[in-house]
Amino acid sequence: MDFLSLFLMDFVKQLQSPTLGFLIGGMIIAALGSELVIPESICTIIVFMLLTKIGLTGGIAIRNSNLMDMVLPALFAVVVGVVVVFIARYTLAKLPKVRTVDAIATGGLFGAVSGSTMAAALTLLEEEKISYEAWAGALYPFMDIPALVTAIVIANIYLNQKKRRAENEYLSKQPVAAGDYPDQQQYPRSRQEYLSQQQDPEDNRVKIWPIIEESLRGPALSAMLLGLALGLFTQPESVYKSFYDPAFRGLLSILMLVMGMEAWSRIGELRKVAQWYVVYSVVAPFVHGLIAFGLGLIAHYTTGFSMGGVVVLAVIASSSSDISGPPTLRAGIPSANPSAYIGASTAVGTPVAIGLCIPFFIGLAQAIGG
Amino acid sequence: MDFLSLFLMDFVKQLQSPTLGFLIGGMIIAALGSELVIPESICTIIVFMLLTKIGLTGGIAIRNSNLMDMVLPALFAVVVGVVVVFIARYTLAKLPKVRTVDAIATGGLFGAVSGSTMAAALTLLEEEKISYEAWAGALYPFMDIPALVTAIVIANIYLNQKKRRAENEYLSKQPVAAGDYPDQQQYPRSRQEYLSQQQDPEDNRVKIWPIIEESLRGPALSAMLLGLALGLFTQPESVYKSFYDPAFRGLLSILMLVMGMEAWSRIGELRKVAQWYVVYSVVAPFVHGLIAFGLGLIAHYTTGFSMGGVVVLAVIASSSSDISGPPTLRAGIPSANPSAYIGASTAVGTPVAIGLCIPFFIGLAQAIGG
Amino acid sequence: MDFLSLFLMDFVKQLQSPTLGFLIGGMIIAALGSELVIPESICTIIVFMLLTKIGLTGGIAIRNSNLMDMVLPALFAVVVGVVVVFIARYTLAKLPKVRTVDAIATGGLFGAVSGSTMAAALTLLEEEKISYEAWAGALYPFMDIPALVTAIVIANIYLNQKKRRAENEYLSKQPVAAGDYPDQQQYPRSRQEYLSQQQDPEDNRVKIWPIIEESLRGPALSAMLLGLALGLFTQPESVYKSFYDPAFRGLLSILMLVMGMEAWSRIGELRKVAQWYVVYSVVAPFVHGLIAFGLGLIAHYTTGFSMGGVVVLAVIASSSSDISGPPTLRAGIPSANPSAYIGASTAVGTPVAIGLCIPFFIGLAQAIGG
Repeated sequence: MDFLSLFLMDFVKQLQSPTLGFLIGGMIIAALGSELVIPESICTIIVFMLLTKIGLTGGIAIRNSNLMDMVLPALFAVVVGVVVVFIARYTLAKLPKVRTVDAIATGGLFGAVSGSTMAAALTLLEEEKISYEAWAGALYPFMDIPALVTAIVIANIYLNQKKRRAENEYLSKQPVAAGDYPDQQQYPRSRQEYLSQQQDPEDNRVKIWPIIEESLRGPALSAMLLGLALGLFTQPESVYKSFYDPAFRGLLSILMLVMGMEAWSRIGELRKVAQWYVVYSVVAPFVHGLIAFGLGLIAHYTTGFSMGGVVVLAVIASSSSDISGPPTLRAGIPSANPSAYIGASTAVGTPVAIGLCIPFFIGLAQAIGG
Repeated sequence: MDFLSLFLMDFVKQLQSPTLGFLIGGMIIAALGSELVIPESICTIIVFMLLTKIGLTGGIAIRNSNLMDMVLPALFAVVVGVVVVFIARYTLAKLPKVRTVDAIATGGLFGAVSGSTMAAALTLLEEEKISYEAWAGALYPFMDIPALVTAIVIANIYLNQKKRRAENEYLSKQPVAAGDYPDQQQYPRSRQEYLSQQQDPEDNRVKIWPIIEESLRGPALSAMLLGLALGLFTQPESVYKSFYDPAFRGLLSILMLVMGMEAWSRIGELRKVAQWYVVYSVVAPFVHGLIAFGLGLIAHYTTGFSMGGVVVLAVIASSSSDISGPPTLRAGIPSANPSAYIGASTAVGTPVAIGLCIPFFIGLAQAIGG
Repeated sequence: MDFLSLFLMDFVKQLQSPTLGFLIGGMIIAALGSELVIPESICTIIVFMLLTKIGLTGGIAIRNSNLMDMVLPALFAVVVGVVVVFIARYTLAKLPKVRTVDAIATGGLFGAVSGSTMAAALTLLEEEKISYEAWAGALYPFMDIPALVTAIVIANIYLNQKKRRAENEYLSKQPVAAGDYPDQQQYPRSRQEYLSQQQDPEDNRVKIWPIIEESLRGPALSAMLLGLALGLFTQPESVYKSFYDPAFRGLLSILMLVMGMEAWSRIGELRKVAQWYVVYSVVAPFVHGLIAFGLGLIAHYTTGFSMGGVVVLAVIASSSSDISGPPTLRAGIPSANPSAYIGASTAVGTPVAIGLCIPFFIGLAQAIGG
């Protein structure tokens, strides 16, 4: 009971945080039909500055710290990124009216990481004065990239298997004597062959390196890795302290507002796809976060990973990608329906991750650690 | 004489303020043909940040203060907002070559409030170290919305009366026996009936709630009310102190520059409409401000409303809306000519309010109060 | 040897500066194919803020300083701006495959000044704690405008001479008896006369005032002169300290990133024109900088111009215009090929000036002065 009351008090207190306030405020003014618009170019530069700042923080931290400490959390981040996709493959994909490729793509997006959600978590941890490793933000790509790669790979394996099954069925249904319109009958087969040449189905191999490359080239990871490199190899402390650090919280507040408004406006898109997506989008962030939290606790007890770091790991597992993920998935799994995975992530997954999971995991960490 | 010299010294001193300097600078470089352009998206985010900050200030202040203190100033704000429209209806509208609906719309715009002008006044008060109630910025909607609602309502009443007069004249001029082209003759009547059904002229009722709703949904009031709500219900002090407050003055300087350039470029539009608009736009800000200043003084002597607060009330009365007002009026009084009311407000009213009325009322307050 | 080792140590140290780090980072991520994009509107406002800040600094400094100190450095700035164009006229223009007008335009761009490069130099001087006259930034227009005017004037003189030569050759080749198709034969002559009327070739006069006017109206110089005027005639210290000054370094870092990415993307344009442009773009910044450095040293020993000021003078000579110059040249020398002069400046000249010349001249100043 003490645990529960501590947890609940903390949960309620965090809903008063300005970071969550702006998110909820954005949803409310969008619901009330406000004509407020934050220009696209402003959102772009805010995301750039937030992720560059997270990268710089990580780079400066790594320069001054023991890289060995990062190994176990980074490994766990990779594990969670991969596991999340398989969860979607064997739960969401089995639900009625859910297409398997859509489910896999959704899993990929929920395994990938949202820089904004992570930024919100780091800010809330600071407000709560819970310390965390400064390099914790650098765990981002260790979860993000494996999730996207896994999703694209298993989606293609699935599509190839389906294709071959269809091919076999088609062949077994073929009459022994060629029919009247051989051209028409052979058309699907030749198209399959055409696709096969591209995707090399004989050994089910999907080229993994291009997916990784594309993830790294996306604007979100580019900015973060740039910041990381500059933090590692130059002396950015002056510009960090005079610009990126003080502006962080304020820029985040604007972005939270935009995400709240966007979440509301995307609600409609979700209605077009199966309602099971809503269920998944509410439950999955907690499940993913708890798996990561559990793994983080192992690192906490074995290598001294801080409880703040455990929360960061749990939150990036809860989060679903909003910037870098969608274009990568659209290119990697072109047959998946974007309004399924983007709608699920933006309209439900992200608000749940920021508004509920962050306070939940901070409360959990405080109840356990305090 | 002492009063006058004190006032004049102060007036000249304030023209050296960077806030006014950027306004005048903008007019000068526009006059010299500079190709400097501040992108639209930057102006949008600046207005958002300024009004969110004013809202946050107000919300935090209201949370920590006695709401009763606000009642009288808020009431006076409503009164001024309504009175300003009636002044335009019975002065500007009576002048030669001025269409009555245009005059009413102009009155609505001059009664509505400019967030930028208010921001400039708050900054100048701080530079002069004149204290004012932190919730003074929250008087904005109490004047803004009544002015717009009044303008739209009396414009529609006027249009209905005119219509009915025309209808009566038309009926009285009708020959007893139907003429040769009954269809043509009845066309105007049926169109009037069509309009009547929409605007319900029998009881002269205009739906007031949609106008209020539309005002509240505009980007300027949305941002301010969002800030107000966040200030009231969350703990935004950290993001306020690290971001919205320090950026305020600088962002305002950029906006002042833009407003100066815009004022110059709109001068041409004014020439297209009657010159009486120029006279009105110069005189009205002072008249409106003096009415509000007088009412403010009543609040000062009865309920202890600060002299700084009196200046804020006078300045929001002097100001004319530049962001939220025009679209509301365009929708509410579609027959009014936008180049009349926007030209009058942007090209003359706003520079006069910022460049002359703010120093004037600060000087007046110091001469009276000091 | 001591001189050399001091210089080299300093050079390497400055490559670790975040300002240069962002430039090099931009080139690297562009080379790696990053999809990171900084919106155009953000770059515009950053340039505005940087140049307004430099102007404000200069204006405030001039208000508080002896104008006589500025005379010699300003004179030297004019001299360098003019000399740079003549260097291009008599070196680059003589190289194989280089069109003379292109060479003159390139010289104009390399003589003109880059606000971003100057901003980088001022930041690096502050990081190195080398003091310089606060009005040093105000030397900008004294070099920028003469260079552009000189380039446009000598390009037009050259074009007129060429035209007259062509005309004379054409006349001398004319048969004594008029040919069969007098109209056709006279067509070129009449076109030349048409052009002559416009450009007044008889006395080779090019109207200089419109070129100066156009330079002053460009967004870069407009912003800087506005800042200068505000610094001189108003009291902008509050907005300067709370906004323009603290944001400077951070905004510069974003701009450096953009310039690095742009430099990389322009490399291709350079390949289209003669490779001699690459040679010129690498060598010229050093040559121009050394000339200015030498003249600056004269001012240092005669009138006490600071060594930091000498570096500023050298760097603005090294720099080539990226914002204000190109449109002025495009209008003034329409027959010159923009991919020649813009490619040379943006792809090679600017990175060399920022990445190599700034550390070089700072190192030189420290080795001499320290």
